[in-house]
Amino acid sequence: MGGDWELSWSKRAAEEAEHVATISCSGHGRAYLDGLILDGKEPVCECNSCYGGRDCSLFLTGCAANADSGDPYFLEPFWTKHASKSAVLVAGWHRMSYVFPDQSRISAELERHIREIHTIVGNAVTEGRYIVFGAGSTQLLNAAVNALSTSNNFNSSPSSVVASIPYYSLYQMQTEFFRSMDYMFQGDAALLQNTSDATKNVVEFVTSPNNPDGQLKKAIFQGPNAKAIYDRVYYWPHFTAIPAPADDDLMIFTISKLTGHAGTRFGWALVKDESVYQRMTQHILMSSLGISRDAQLRALKLLNVVLETGGREIFEFGYHTLKKRWENLTNILSLSNRFTLQKIEPKYCNFFKNIRDPSPAYAWVKCEREEDKDCYEVLKQEANVYGRPGAEFGAEDRYVRLTLLRSQDDFDLLLQRLNQLVLDERKSKIIISSQVGGQYVT
Amino acid sequence: MGGDWELSWSKRAAEEAEHVATISCSGHGRAYLDGLILDGKEPVCECNSCYGGRDCSLFLTGCAANADSGDPYFLEPFWTKHASKSAVLVAGWHRMSYVFPDQSRISAELERHIREIHTIVGNAVTEGRYIVFGAGSTQLLNAAVNALSTSNNFNSSPSSVVASIPYYSLYQMQTEFFRSMDYMFQGDAALLQNTSDATKNVVEFVTSPNNPDGQLKKAIFQGPNAKAIYDRVYYWPHFTAIPAPADDDLMIFTISKLTGHAGTRFGWALVKDESVYQRMTQHILMSSLGISRDAQLRALKLLNVVLETGGREIFEFGYHTLKKRWENLTNILSLSNRFTLQKIEPKYCNFFKNIRDPSPAYAWVKCEREEDKDCYEVLKQEANVYGRPGAEFGAEDRYVRLTLLRSQDDFDLLLQRLNQLVLDERKSKIIISSQVGGQYVT
Repeated sequence: MGGDWELSWSKRAAEEAEHVATISCSGHGRAYLDGLILDGKEPVCECNSCYGGRDCSLFLTGCAANADSGDPYFLEPFWTKHASKSAVLVAGWHRMSYVFPDQSRISAELERHIREIHTIVGNAVTEGRYIVFGAGSTQLLNAAVNALSTSNNFNSSPSSVVASIPYYSLYQMQTEFFRSMDYMFQGDAALLQNTSDATKNVVEFVTSPNNPDGQLKKAIFQGPNAKAIYDRVYYWPHFTAIPAPADDDLMIFTISKLTGHAGTRFGWALVKDESVYQRMTQHILMSSLGISRDAQLRALKLLNVVLETGGREIFEFGYHTLKKRWENLTNILSLSNRFTLQKIEPKYCNFFKNIRDPSPAYAWVKCEREEDKDCYEVLKQEANVYGRPGAEFGAEDRYVRLTLLRSQDDFDLLLQRLNQLVLDERKSKIIISSQVGGQYVT
Repeated sequence: MGGDWELSWSKRAAEEAEHVATISCSGHGRAYLDGLILDGKEPVCECNSCYGGRDCSLFLTGCAANADSGDPYFLEPFWTKHASKSAVLVAGWHRMSYVFPDQSRISAELERHIREIHTIVGNAVTEGRYIVFGAGSTQLLNAAVNALSTSNNFNSSPSSVVASIPYYSLYQMQTEFFRSMDYMFQGDAALLQNTSDATKNVVEFVTSPNNPDGQLKKAIFQGPNAKAIYDRVYYWPHFTAIPAPADDDLMIFTISKLTGHAGTRFGWALVKDESVYQRMTQHILMSSLGISRDAQLRALKLLNVVLETGGREIFEFGYHTLKKRWENLTNILSLSNRFTLQKIEPKYCNFFKNIRDPSPAYAWVKCEREEDKDCYEVLKQEANVYGRPGAEFGAEDRYVRLTLLRSQDDFDLLLQRLNQLVLDERKSKIIISSQVGGQYVT
């Protein structure tokens, strides 16, 4: 290409996009091309939590700090910085067909990019692996359960689906929702291991690093009837040291946690066994006739930007952002006796080629006081912060998950609220101890 | 906006798209932004069936005419004509969140556009209806089966899922594939009606207009335990007269058949009952956490173009293209005694406000000769045309479906091959009759 190109039919779309991008939302929100249009004029600002007003300049005092969902806005600044490289113009006639020229529903270029990223990051073995695309990891998780549970014997009992507590609640909700004859959610892996007979088919979800606590986990069940679905969506240098390429039989990834594009709904599975791959592909076909070509095009463009610097730029950005957030949070909570956090040790990372500090996606907070049985409620009532209750992960309500992945606005507010809570705790401690001291004197 | 806008960050993406669009594929193919890249240079031409070579200029003689899949390329020329209005530029930071500001996974603007299109076309009642988005009609079909089958009583027997022959094969494949405890595919509706007891829950797929034969069908099952899923994806003025707005309890649509963007995977359901709507929404959530925001943005842009002329332009284009194709086909086959087509009467259309000729999406061809039991094989062997066998629609193999929706290249080749076949038939008839005549003389 090169040189000056006189734009024709693409100009209008480019202008529209740039125009929307110039709408000022005071750095606390954003206007989108498909945003609500008021007065027949232009899209409105969509404000970050706790900001309001026409241009999001209004801070809503008393508003609760959102530390609940894993919306990966922490990567948004990376994409605004790389505006030019990451934009994509979709023509009206782009990929109207049900299939690609090879009759598949998978972009060969995108598959190539995915394999290359795993190679440069060193987080997963792709040789001898088939790739299945899905609408985020979500669609692939159920496709995997289905593929690993399907038996040719119609009389066999349904597979037991398990996960180790604490686990991502979708596993249970999804597995139960579809009410298949082939599988049944059975809850905690450790519990089932004590009671199950070894001839029964078990499908185990293994989240590594784990959501919510960031631990690198391994399957509990072993043997010929045990099958594991490795949910590897957090196995990127943003969130964890990469000690070695993961080499599991079935691994699931998503751009939601790699590039931060949760709304695009694009993920993939690396699958060793051909029949499992076939069955998962058939599942995606029967579910939705494959993945949106627009989502695939977008993912291709984004991964292309990631690859341009061999991954260094985005992973350094992601790692430093989350490391900083983790440090801030631990600094504040270290002053408290009331709350503790999961322990994550610094570890050698084969991608960064050095020992790296913790930078988890979530804080897994425990309320240590005997009376603080519902940690979610404690934070909500006393700090005006809402996280996600421990019970949602199959754990005690003495735990609560706080996300570190959201926008800087959300994180700043979270910190500020926790800081105040800890200050109050210390203040009351000083008062109590001075009172106690006073008692001694009198 | 207006005036001259100096483009900055969007320029590169716009140039890339225009550059790819200039790659010449001789009018028999197309290069795409995410096409295979050879020699590290630029995307290759992807040729229409039966064309090859670097620039698709090579006609592959002897190649089979593809009349199988419903790839809706017949609308592609409409979008190339409206290149400027239908292009969309997606910024790197577009909609990274899992949710929209109202915490839904549905673009409110897109929902508004959809309701407006139904209103101007007059093909469906939207008042008092909820809208569910899905990855094409495919995902919604299963969501609907699931929602209509779910019972609070765990001991109740599974719902019977039925359709009238001939029916779209996905209904059966999908319903059987997911092996739910709540529903079971039972085949032909008419057959079940004779044998079933009225207390059993029946879910009936009603495709109207029908795929493959274009008939406007109605549900066979009635009564409190009968529920219908109206697959209305062909109920647009391209394919049929619109006698009145459809007013069914559950109706499914998709842009695949409205704008021709099958690859985008975007459809919607209009749902009367709130609990069915809730259950379908939950299904889409558990299946994929909602529909790709990139697909939603694309759909919004395309529907915007449709709306600009009150639908007139695209529907006139679609109708005239398919009407012409149907005429050509009927003209050729009217010379044959061997093949017949379904009958479709001209009918008053409330959208066009006049009586319109037939313009179905598919030809449903019957082989009339006693010995031509497998019509698919007859066309394949004798005309080098492949359609879709009648058995795939639950019908006799004496039928075969030929698609009229593909590119002009594919259709032209189909016509040419059928023309030759009919000429051969007439020639052999003349020979036979002259032979027979000779016998009379001697």
